[in-house]
Amino acid sequence: MKTKAIFYHAGCPVCVAAEHSVANALDPSRYAVESVHLGTSKARVKEAVAAGVKSVPALVMNGAAFHINFGASIDALK
Amino acid sequence: MKTKAIFYHAGCPVCVAAEHSVANALDPSRYAVESVHLGTSKARVKEAVAAGVKSVPALVMNGAAFHINFGASIDALK
Repeated sequence: MKTKAIFYHAGCPVCVAAEHSVANALDPSRYAVESVHLGTSKARVKEAVAAGVKSVPALVMNGAAFHINFGASIDALK
Repeated sequence: MKTKAIFYHAGCPVCVAAEHSVANALDPSRYAVESVHLGTSKARVKEAVAAGVKSVPALVMNGAAFHINFGASIDALK
């Protein structure tokens, strides 16, 4: 069974770069990556916050949030 | 040919978590990941700085530096 990884972003340039380079580089045989745009999916901001996301872009996997560079604060997306 | 990715770290807990979750999750069929401990390989700090690394852990790939959370400033490793 694949491990779930969620890439939270807001469509910003920093987010796009992180998605293209890092999120898309994850091994598809081991990880199922879901990409969530928090600017358009406002309903999922709460879930991201609960997972420890403080800014986007961020990758949530193995129960932890990995913030990749800094695009926007999660507070700006609430 | 595989794309080179370099994971710079300093052995810190934040670095270890990022290496285990993110760096090790990269697709081995597409990426050749090199892990560099800047605390013990001081000679490579200059190269990391030139690649845009400002803190560790960081993943350098596709010509850009992706800082993953924050473990230590690169200045603390010089």
